[in-house]
Amino acid sequence: MHRYRSHTCAALTAADAGGSVRLSGWVHRIRDHGGLLFIDLRDHYGITQCVVDPDSPAFSDAEKVRAEWVIRVDGEVKLRGADAVNPNLPTGEIEVFIREIEVLSSAKELPLPVFGEPDYPEDVRLRYRFLDLRRETLHANIVKRSQIIAEMRRRMTDSGFAEYSTPILTASSPEGARDFLVPSRIHPGKFFALPQAPQQYKQLLMVAGFDRYFQIAPCFRDEDPRADRLPGEFYQLDLEMSFVTQEDVWDTMEPIITGVFEAFADGKAVTKQWPRIPYDVAIRKYGSDKPDLRNPIEMQAVTEHFAGSGFKVFANLIAADPKTEVWAIPAKTGGSRAFCDRMNAWAQQQGQPGLGYIFWRKEGDVLEGAGPIAKNIGPERTEAIRTQLGLDDGDAAFFVAGDPTKFYKFAGEARTKAGTDLELVDTERFELCWIVDFPFYEWNEDEKRIDFAHNPFSMPQGGLETLRTTNDPLTIKAYQYDAVCNGFEIASGSVRNQEPDTMVAAFELTGTGREEVEERFGGLYRAFQYGAPPHGGAAFGLDRIVMLLCGVQNLREITLFPMNQQAEDLLMGAPSTASAKQLRELHIRLNLSDKK
Amino acid sequence: MHRYRSHTCAALTAADAGGSVRLSGWVHRIRDHGGLLFIDLRDHYGITQCVVDPDSPAFSDAEKVRAEWVIRVDGEVKLRGADAVNPNLPTGEIEVFIREIEVLSSAKELPLPVFGEPDYPEDVRLRYRFLDLRRETLHANIVKRSQIIAEMRRRMTDSGFAEYSTPILTASSPEGARDFLVPSRIHPGKFFALPQAPQQYKQLLMVAGFDRYFQIAPCFRDEDPRADRLPGEFYQLDLEMSFVTQEDVWDTMEPIITGVFEAFADGKAVTKQWPRIPYDVAIRKYGSDKPDLRNPIEMQAVTEHFAGSGFKVFANLIAADPKTEVWAIPAKTGGSRAFCDRMNAWAQQQGQPGLGYIFWRKEGDVLEGAGPIAKNIGPERTEAIRTQLGLDDGDAAFFVAGDPTKFYKFAGEARTKAGTDLELVDTERFELCWIVDFPFYEWNEDEKRIDFAHNPFSMPQGGLETLRTTNDPLTIKAYQYDAVCNGFEIASGSVRNQEPDTMVAAFELTGTGREEVEERFGGLYRAFQYGAPPHGGAAFGLDRIVMLLCGVQNLREITLFPMNQQAEDLLMGAPSTASAKQLRELHIRLNLSDKK
Repeated sequence: MHRYRSHTCAALTAADAGGSVRLSGWVHRIRDHGGLLFIDLRDHYGITQCVVDPDSPAFSDAEKVRAEWVIRVDGEVKLRGADAVNPNLPTGEIEVFIREIEVLSSAKELPLPVFGEPDYPEDVRLRYRFLDLRRETLHANIVKRSQIIAEMRRRMTDSGFAEYSTPILTASSPEGARDFLVPSRIHPGKFFALPQAPQQYKQLLMVAGFDRYFQIAPCFRDEDPRADRLPGEFYQLDLEMSFVTQEDVWDTMEPIITGVFEAFADGKAVTKQWPRIPYDVAIRKYGSDKPDLRNPIEMQAVTEHFAGSGFKVFANLIAADPKTEVWAIPAKTGGSRAFCDRMNAWAQQQGQPGLGYIFWRKEGDVLEGAGPIAKNIGPERTEAIRTQLGLDDGDAAFFVAGDPTKFYKFAGEARTKAGTDLELVDTERFELCWIVDFPFYEWNEDEKRIDFAHNPFSMPQGGLETLRTTNDPLTIKAYQYDAVCNGFEIASGSVRNQEPDTMVAAFELTGTGREEVEERFGGLYRAFQYGAPPHGGAAFGLDRIVMLLCGVQNLREITLFPMNQQAEDLLMGAPSTASAKQLRELHIRLNLSDKK
Repeated sequence: MHRYRSHTCAALTAADAGGSVRLSGWVHRIRDHGGLLFIDLRDHYGITQCVVDPDSPAFSDAEKVRAEWVIRVDGEVKLRGADAVNPNLPTGEIEVFIREIEVLSSAKELPLPVFGEPDYPEDVRLRYRFLDLRRETLHANIVKRSQIIAEMRRRMTDSGFAEYSTPILTASSPEGARDFLVPSRIHPGKFFALPQAPQQYKQLLMVAGFDRYFQIAPCFRDEDPRADRLPGEFYQLDLEMSFVTQEDVWDTMEPIITGVFEAFADGKAVTKQWPRIPYDVAIRKYGSDKPDLRNPIEMQAVTEHFAGSGFKVFANLIAADPKTEVWAIPAKTGGSRAFCDRMNAWAQQQGQPGLGYIFWRKEGDVLEGAGPIAKNIGPERTEAIRTQLGLDDGDAAFFVAGDPTKFYKFAGEARTKAGTDLELVDTERFELCWIVDFPFYEWNEDEKRIDFAHNPFSMPQGGLETLRTTNDPLTIKAYQYDAVCNGFEIASGSVRNQEPDTMVAAFELTGTGREEVEERFGGLYRAFQYGAPPHGGAAFGLDRIVMLLCGVQNLREITLFPMNQQAEDLLMGAPSTASAKQLRELHIRLNLSDKK
């Protein structure tokens, strides 16, 4: 018989009854039932109920073991009595009568219980992560994460992609977030940087002719911790394709990502054909470029119905500024004064003056709009609004007015609030879409200049011609897109600008000259001089996808060994001090004068 | 039709003749054949021959394109004439008559030609790596590397392993090689370290109950560059298993690695059942713990035949010191004075006094041993040696005498030299084996103390009992093993010491106390207090395996973006200077006073 086990703790069934077996695992729970000791023995695969009766030679050993000790047991498989069968456990039809126990490893008093998973402070969970990770929920999340990644790899490979690992010790990237730096021992005063993303390398791979690249890529940004962002490292499903349009990227990735979601969605519906929503439309309909499409509410402009109306607040705004619009947030089933007042109060909490509304109700046979706005604009305009929005008895609409570029975010939040509170959001779905046609540039108010809205590597729609002839660069769109699921951005990508002249022209509109482009993006810019194929790609945020599929809000619930919010690894004790010899070898000294 | 291509450059066959197609790719080569222009168009997948005749509207465009431009061509597929068919090319039966050419990207004069792969200086190859990577051999190696890794992942997953990524920003490891350090911005004066290997994390995973872990793991060591070691990062197939003996690790990994080798061996034979050779036996038979088993030579001790013999050099050594041994290196087909003299001369080049030998030849019907040693020891002893070694007419034996711990390395090199020069080595094989039962300790001559021979995390054979009762710690073996292929170490592993008391006892014999163990291996040592399963594993050197399977000697031939021997990335310009702001944020200053 094997030194440690003949079966795992998930393997034994009624068919094994009568057999002599050996199991190893952790003592999950011990119960004393009238002299009989029940030991639930747990390993990675499952739990098997083991029993010792006082006549067993192992009884005195069994009395000594405690929770989370690692033991080996030898014993006989017996069928449980009908009333003791546990149909929720794969091994629920049997139990093992213990003949012998060997303690493989004992455990001190536990700082963090495993059984039952009681709530515990985060610092204890992180310091004793090896115990935390034994808990059923976290253990299952980590396994699921591994399976999701394996499934992604399989589907990417099946779709003709090959995985290439790009360097982790590389050059500082002059754009984007803050780099982690690594002092060079061999080159005094110089530093490597950890990659914020393999962006330049993956584009170089395309220039090198590799055609379809992907990588489960570790990325590093030295940013302050946030609830949805762990300090340090995170992972992307990074990909790039040559000789493609943006439609090729979408057509290729949709079935892969839908397939991954379906494999782990636990029966929830997953979008098969992803809507491709222009950025401008997303802003107008959902007040967000990360719309949660499980929320059926779509906003509409109803400006004309308020122009010249008796609701002077809006009417005056419209008269004063042609940019003014009024957006309606239709809220089916929201048609009660109580709900509308709640929404209004919520808006005031958000720092808004309030949230105008109309709600519809039947007075006898007559459907009428109620509330102050309806009174002010009169029944005809009220009815026109109702008709446009397709609302009925028991429904409501909320109104936001002003400059849409200023109010769209709040409008989007109101849409989310109404959809959530009215339980219009179907939480049993994963709704996926592409947001496309992002603006290429945006106005940098701090520096009073035009800046790239997203990514200087993207191709502007219309190319060099448009850059040269445009009167207003802010109207230029890019071949730039995001993938969104249930209100979260899960990917960002673009068709790249691989034409050196177009690249320089694009930078020039932001006030950056050719020399600076050459200096900042030397490797890539040089590569584009020697035959660069049209190419495009995307990067999917792995952690976010795993969080969605595990149904958790906190990155620590899907990460093996996370740092805490102070960017410390409490288990391994990182970061830590370096020796004088190490610092000398790296040609650096500490500078603690500005220590806070 | 698609914007860029209806087919790849490897897709078209005779069945497509007559069709109108669109291809995109790089201009691999242009030839002018009596007015006709032939353009070999290349992409990741293959090459298609394209033709333009002077009547084509595309002719003037075709005249302009140069090597490595990226172009799109539209044209008609035609069968080649029988004499023009190229059976070595998947597309060799057809050619595409070009109707239209679009230049997608031009190329400046090439600093590094792609076609023909002429030799070029390494700094040019690295600076223009994107061109270098287009070359057929390197391109194919990189693709093969990706495929090998995918195959490993598939086989590991099929064998019940799950891949878990461990942190890259972690704690400095106090043992082993030099760490790369990363200054912490949030914790002034503290540093993260990049992992030399995920050793502690993978053991923590076992303590956390994950049972079968693997990872294609990036590892980092700040060592000076060597021919067989790139500066910076390298990859391991890292794995760990719980509730296993060392035999379980071997039985699990043998078919996986054999399978990977077979998939990429290009028909070469691969060992299916790996010999498991104790370290002591390997040293005695092969003079190395990394034996090349393709070399059939096995050394034997022949001390007794020289004791008291007329060959006084050896006889006196034997008489003077009981540790003296004489080892024979039998060399079939090496039985000529010319070859024996060559070996002798080679030994002198190696700094040895020489290499004694006997060679056997037939004088008439009589088989006799020739050479000075045979003369000195006489025919009886000579014949006894021949019989023991199983040699015959035309064979030779070489002899090394002294303290085996001092000469075994040289003896091993002589074995390699003889096997190679006599062409006894079957280069059409991958010979795999395990070297097992490594010594647990070794003598640290510098510090005059006992030290771990390999890995302080390994379990000593005999466990705590043996540690406590041994008279000579240097005789203790460990459950420690290597995998070897064709003379190269491709893996190292062990069953781990997961018992805190045994761990402390093992360290104590090296002069390290409990407190220091706790301090240096805090995370792991703490974990072992809370129920640690017996576990073991290994780490396979990915780069070495890929080098073997690609048949290359230089890591740069299988690495995408390697640094040069000065630890610089010439393409991206790393390492580079940091800004004053960056240094200030990281609480460090440069210390260039000791700059060489």
